Amino acid sequence: MRPYELILKKREGHELTPDEIRAWIAGVTSGSFTDAQSAALLMAILFRGMTERETTALTQAMAESGRQVDLSSLPGVKVDKHSSGGVGDKTTLVLAPLVAAAGATVAKLSGRALGHTGGTLDKLESIPGIRVELSLPEFLDVVRRVGVAVASAGVDLAPADKKLYALRDATATVDAVPLIAASIMSKKLAGGADAFVLDIKVGDGAFLPEEEDALALARACVTIAHRAGRRAVAYLTNMDQPLGVAVGNALEVREAIETLKGGGPRDLRELVLVLGAEMVRLAGVESDEERARALLARLLDSGEAAARFQKMIEAQHGDPAVVDNPDLLPRAEVRVPVEAQERGFVQAIATRELGLASMALGAGRDRPGAPVDLAVGLEVVKKLGDLVEPGEPVAWIHARSREQAEAIRPRVLRAFRLGEARMTPPPLIRQRVAEGT
Amino acid sequence: MRPYELILKKREGHELTPDEIRAWIAGVTSGSFTDAQSAALLMAILFRGMTERETTALTQAMAESGRQVDLSSLPGVKVDKHSSGGVGDKTTLVLAPLVAAAGATVAKLSGRALGHTGGTLDKLESIPGIRVELSLPEFLDVVRRVGVAVASAGVDLAPADKKLYALRDATATVDAVPLIAASIMSKKLAGGADAFVLDIKVGDGAFLPEEEDALALARACVTIAHRAGRRAVAYLTNMDQPLGVAVGNALEVREAIETLKGGGPRDLRELVLVLGAEMVRLAGVESDEERARALLARLLDSGEAAARFQKMIEAQHGDPAVVDNPDLLPRAEVRVPVEAQERGFVQAIATRELGLASMALGAGRDRPGAPVDLAVGLEVVKKLGDLVEPGEPVAWIHARSREQAEAIRPRVLRAFRLGEARMTPPPLIRQRVAEGT
Repeated sequence: MRPYELILKKREGHELTPDEIRAWIAGVTSGSFTDAQSAALLMAILFRGMTERETTALTQAMAESGRQVDLSSLPGVKVDKHSSGGVGDKTTLVLAPLVAAAGATVAKLSGRALGHTGGTLDKLESIPGIRVELSLPEFLDVVRRVGVAVASAGVDLAPADKKLYALRDATATVDAVPLIAASIMSKKLAGGADAFVLDIKVGDGAFLPEEEDALALARACVTIAHRAGRRAVAYLTNMDQPLGVAVGNALEVREAIETLKGGGPRDLRELVLVLGAEMVRLAGVESDEERARALLARLLDSGEAAARFQKMIEAQHGDPAVVDNPDLLPRAEVRVPVEAQERGFVQAIATRELGLASMALGAGRDRPGAPVDLAVGLEVVKKLGDLVEPGEPVAWIHARSREQAEAIRPRVLRAFRLGEARMTPPPLIRQRVAEGT
Repeated sequence: MRPYELILKKREGHELTPDEIRAWIAGVTSGSFTDAQSAALLMAILFRGMTERETTALTQAMAESGRQVDLSSLPGVKVDKHSSGGVGDKTTLVLAPLVAAAGATVAKLSGRALGHTGGTLDKLESIPGIRVELSLPEFLDVVRRVGVAVASAGVDLAPADKKLYALRDATATVDAVPLIAASIMSKKLAGGADAFVLDIKVGDGAFLPEEEDALALARACVTIAHRAGRRAVAYLTNMDQPLGVAVGNALEVREAIETLKGGGPRDLRELVLVLGAEMVRLAGVESDEERARALLARLLDSGEAAARFQKMIEAQHGDPAVVDNPDLLPRAEVRVPVEAQERGFVQAIATRELGLASMALGAGRDRPGAPVDLAVGLEVVKKLGDLVEPGEPVAWIHARSREQAEAIRPRVLRAFRLGEARMTPPPLIRQRVAEGT
C-alpha cells in the first residue's frame, strides 16, 4: 500500500493493519515515507485515534527499528521502571539500588533533562567521577556484578520513535495518547526488560496535567506491554507539587542518599515503597505486597540500600564516598531564602513553573545537548496544606550568585498561592492500573 | 506566530486570521514552514474546514506568491472561463473565439492534460505549426490584435499553490473543498481577468463526482471571487457522460471546428451557448440572456466564430487552413469499432474510465511532462438513453495499430452499461450559482 492510500485510510477512520503500520515505520526509517506524509498521517491519527491493535503494532515496529537490548544473559525477571517526568522526581536514584538490594536485577536505561523536568543521568553525574555513558557490554557487566546499573548503554533505542517525535514536536501532533504511549513503550520494549512499573504523573508539573488523559495513557501503556508479551503495572501519582524537597541535580542526589539511608521526605519514601513493592512483586522476589513493603523499608533503614548504591557508583567509576559524605557533591555559592509576605496555608504550587525556574537557574536544558549546571536548584520547603508565617521561607534558591538568585526569586514566590482556608493535600498515589483494571 | 502554534490553532478548530494565513504561505515560499508542517496543517484543515474569510485569504496569498498578470492594457472587461475538468471537454476551443467574435476580450491562459482529463494546450497543439507557449508580451499582443488568445504565457502563476498542490497530492489532502477552491481561484486571480465563468463538472467523469461537493466548490469559488473584488458565475454541468463525441486531442479539435461552423454535437453547442451568454453578459457586450444567446448562435451559424478561430491560429503561428480542411489534423492509423453484444438502452457510461482508456491509448498523461499522442482517442457515438442494437458500435477507437485498439476495446465496451428500461438522460446544465444564490 502506497503512503497516499495509507494516509487516506486513516483519514477516513479505518483501522490500519499491523502490516500497514510496519510499512509506515519501515518507510520512516528508509525515507520512502516522507516527513510530510508522516506528518499528515500523524495529524489524521490525532483526529481519528488508534485502536489497541494499531498502537501495539506501532510500538513494536518502532521498538524493532533499531537495536534491541538483550538482557537474557542476566539472571531472573528483569523489571524496568519509567516515570512520565515531573519536578523533583529522583525516585529512580533510590528505587534502583533498593530493589537490587532486595534481590531483583535492575538494568535501568535512563535519560537526560529536557524542559521543566530533570533527567536521571544528569543527576547521577553530580557524583564525582561517575560514568553514565556506558557501552552495552560495560552496562551488562555492572548489572551482573552489582545487580544494578543506571546508565545509557550506547544504544540508540527505537530510532524511528526519535524521528517521529521530532516531527510531532514540529507539527503540533505530540499530545495524542496512543502516540505518547507508543513512544514511551517502544523504548521500554527495546530496552529488553520483562516487566515494567510505570509512574504516570498527574497534575500541574506533569506532561499530561489532566487525570483523564494520564489514566488513558497509563491504560494504553499497560495494554501495549500485555499485547507485546510483557507485563506492566502503572500508577497515577500526584505532580501538583514537586516530589520531595530538592529540585536540581546534586540537590536531588543528596535527597536520594538521605532516603536510601532511611530518611528523606515522607512523600519520596512513600512513592519508593509503593513502586518498589510492585517491582519486587513483578520480579518474583516477594509476591505479598505488605511483606514486600516491609522488606524494602528494612533495607532502607538498615543501610543496605545505601550500600548497594555505593557499589553501583563504584562499578560506574564514581566516588562512593558521597554516600557517607554528601558534602562531596557540587554545591552552589549562595543559598537564598524565598520568604512569604503573608500568613496562609499553601493552596497551590505552580509546579511546572518551579521546574522552569530551576531550568532557568541552569539545572535543566531547553534543548537537547545543552549543558547543565549540577549545583544549582531549589529546595521547596513548604508543601501543599502547610501553614506559612510572614517572613518564613517557602523555598531556598541555590544559585551561582546573589544576583542570579534575586532574579529568579519573584518567579519562585509567585509559584506559591497562599490562602486562609485549611487545605488537605491531594493523595500521592491516585490510582493503580494493571491489565484488566 | 510560530508554525507550531498556527497548526495547533487550526487543529483545535479556531479560525486563522488573514495575517496568519499570509504568514503560512510566505513560509511555504521561503521554506520557514517545512513541508511536514504544511502537511500537518493541511490535514487539520481537512478535518476542521475553513471559513470564507480563511479561504479567501489563502487564495489571495497564493495568487500573490508569484507574478500576477496585468491585463489592464487590454480593452473592456476581461472575462475568463474555467472548467474543473472532464472527458471530451473541448468547450474552451469553441468558446474563446466565439465570445471574441461577439466583441469581448478573451485572454485565456490554459493548461495541459493530466490523468483522465484532457488539456486545452495539448489539444491546440494538434494544429500544425501553432505555438501555445507564448511569452507574456506575445500573448498580450495576440489578444490585442485578434481579441483572443489561448496559450500559456510564460508566467508561473501562483507558485505557492503549485508547491502546496504537490504536497496535497502526496499526503491525501487534496479533496477538501476550501483547498480545491483556493487552488483554482488563486490561479484565476493571478491570471488577471475581471470576471470568471466557472464550469464545475458533476458526475462520474468529474473531479468531484457528487453534486453536493461540486455545489460547495462552485459556491466557494464564487464567494472567493466576490470577496477578492472580482465577479464570478458558476455552472454545475453534467459529466456522467463525455461532452460531445470526441475524446482525444486532434479528434476534439475537429469537433470544436465543426461546432464553430454551426454544427457539432448538440450537447457541446448547448454548453457553449450557455457559458458564452454568461461571458458576454459579464463582459458587458449584451446584458439580455436571450439576445446574447441568439447573437452567439448567429456567430456560429454564419461562420464568423470559425473565422475568428482562424485568425487566432494564424496569430499563434499555426496553419489556419485546418478550419476549412480538418483532414490536415493528425490522424491515427486505425479506426476500430466497439460493437455492442446485446440490445438495450444506454443506462450508464463509466466516463472517468473512458478518459483513462483514452489516456492509455496515449492521448493523455499520467504525470506532468510526459508526451501525448495527438492523433489517438475515442469517438463515443452512443450516449445516455440511446438505443443500441447488437453489433452496432457504441464507440470507435482511434489507435496507432489494430493490436493497440484490440487491447483497449474490452475496457471501452465495459464502460457502457445497457439495459432494457428506457432512460432519460440527465440534464446537461444542473444549476447556476451566482453570488447570493
